[in-house]
Amino acid sequence: MTHFPNLAALRTACLDLPPGDAVVAATAADRNATLTKPPGSLGRLEDLAVWLAQWQARTPPRLDRIEVLVFAGNHGVVAQGVSAFPAEVTAQMVANFAVGGAAINQLAVLAGARLQVLPLELDRPTADFTERPAMDEKAFLGAVAAGYDAVTADADLVCLGEMGIGNTTAAAAIAAALFGGGGMRWAGRGTGVDDHGLARKRAAIDEAIKRHASILNDPLLVAAALGGRELAAILGAAIAARRQRIPVLIDGFVCTAAIAPLAKLRADGLAHAVAAHVSAEAAHRALLDELRLKPLLDLGMRLGEASGAAVAALILRAALACHTGMATFAEAGVSDKL
Amino acid sequence: MTHFPNLAALRTACLDLPPGDAVVAATAADRNATLTKPPGSLGRLEDLAVWLAQWQARTPPRLDRIEVLVFAGNHGVVAQGVSAFPAEVTAQMVANFAVGGAAINQLAVLAGARLQVLPLELDRPTADFTERPAMDEKAFLGAVAAGYDAVTADADLVCLGEMGIGNTTAAAAIAAALFGGGGMRWAGRGTGVDDHGLARKRAAIDEAIKRHASILNDPLLVAAALGGRELAAILGAAIAARRQRIPVLIDGFVCTAAIAPLAKLRADGLAHAVAAHVSAEAAHRALLDELRLKPLLDLGMRLGEASGAAVAALILRAALACHTGMATFAEAGVSDKL
Repeated sequence: MTHFPNLAALRTACLDLPPGDAVVAATAADRNATLTKPPGSLGRLEDLAVWLAQWQARTPPRLDRIEVLVFAGNHGVVAQGVSAFPAEVTAQMVANFAVGGAAINQLAVLAGARLQVLPLELDRPTADFTERPAMDEKAFLGAVAAGYDAVTADADLVCLGEMGIGNTTAAAAIAAALFGGGGMRWAGRGTGVDDHGLARKRAAIDEAIKRHASILNDPLLVAAALGGRELAAILGAAIAARRQRIPVLIDGFVCTAAIAPLAKLRADGLAHAVAAHVSAEAAHRALLDELRLKPLLDLGMRLGEASGAAVAALILRAALACHTGMATFAEAGVSDKL
Repeated sequence: MTHFPNLAALRTACLDLPPGDAVVAATAADRNATLTKPPGSLGRLEDLAVWLAQWQARTPPRLDRIEVLVFAGNHGVVAQGVSAFPAEVTAQMVANFAVGGAAINQLAVLAGARLQVLPLELDRPTADFTERPAMDEKAFLGAVAAGYDAVTADADLVCLGEMGIGNTTAAAAIAAALFGGGGMRWAGRGTGVDDHGLARKRAAIDEAIKRHASILNDPLLVAAALGGRELAAILGAAIAARRQRIPVLIDGFVCTAAIAPLAKLRADGLAHAVAAHVSAEAAHRALLDELRLKPLLDLGMRLGEASGAAVAALILRAALACHTGMATFAEAGVSDKL
């Protein structure tokens, strides 16, 4: 069991991140150039093959073991009337995951991925962060460690996702804390809140930013005060993946906000991560722009549960299939350029 | 064997197109609303399930049999120096398809699709359309019929694609004829032509538009005069699919230009088709906009061979898996909205 005894230890781990393997990346890029297609004509599929190789430090890369990790948590801020669904839906959906009835169950099977769902003390919601920090240091570090430990060293790719009624409010609060702009910029309709709910959500975010003004310059304190257990676990999983050189697919708005502190702590902190998609949640595009992440897909999805990441894993499979399976110009006897 | 004895017969077929099944579409949309997710939160995946059902006239829809059809042809206009690769590459790539070495081979396997490659008289390139019509009526109708016959009635989805050195010039010429703007608007770098080649390509398109000015108001004559055998076959396959109520995924710029005449003949002529992706070929986005087609993917691909369509077929599989596999709120015991 990983144990971060204090925030300083976690901060050290966040700063001690290995780079990708530049030599392997160059080898993969060289192979792309020999395959029977005009140079660059597979677009991002070529980049993705190089990225997989670089972060797996292996050529050719592989996707034999794709892990989908869905973390679930409950949020005190739902007391502010910020969600279209009641808080008990978090546990109900976890039960739905367990029996295979949710979207992510279908998508994980299709992607040939293993799905792990990790509910985090659903019967103990975080505190309402309009009143006090969502988590104290111990609770936050425990959730980070739970995520960290969920990443197994033999994974070829980790898809990160979440379930938690109220967690787009937490995500928006983190985004507001890290990038400015308040509730007006970052609050969206989440699971489908109405105009009154949206107004309450904006107000809750603005109230939280005011209340926690003294810690807004510390990304880890922001994650503890304005996040939630499942967001902290996603952050922990992203750190664990990087330290074990496992590439990561990020799902939607909540997931992106959860790992944003890592980018704030270290400019290249998310170099091992690709944004699976841009969500229909309005603020997601703004957040991706802040993080200079270019999403693979734009399908109007806004479900969470790693659903966008699992769909994007199919694109990675396409990239890998071309990279490893295609013939070279020499093998196929195809003329190179004029 | 389908036989269109003359252009009038083909024109009649283009106008006699069945609609989708609105009742089945409504049933599929109703099911989407009962599944364990916020309404609409799977975005385009939900729309795609409805579209599949509507055009298969079957609920739930299925994707047991996906057919990838790649038509290949050669083009007299390559004499104008419009391509980065020599004309013999068309036949070489057809040979590469036959032994499984091309991108589409890998992607078709991944999508669980059957790949059929149909070379169309590669040893008899079409005429150079800067000088005379690319095809006479007989050659054009023969190619349309070859495409028409390649669509089998038991297909659940048809992915259309092409291979043909020089065919982005033909596609650009068709787009220019149907939508105006000339070589400057529609010529791109294709497989990677240099600045001089691009200038020659623009000039060839402008010359062709001038030479064939008298037929530009007839979409089928445009397809014959400025297209190519593989483009004509794609048009024929799109018509056959519509008449047999089989949904179609369109690949890139060449494929989109090939079927554009159907939209010109009848406003809803492409209602059974979804644009798989927007290509890096610069004019593709403009052409999709003209046809009001919203691409599923934007991955910077520009290879042709139905490669984008095969990747998009993975997205359709994701849509279908969710639509057919997810539990309803009632089945899962999940609370509906507040």
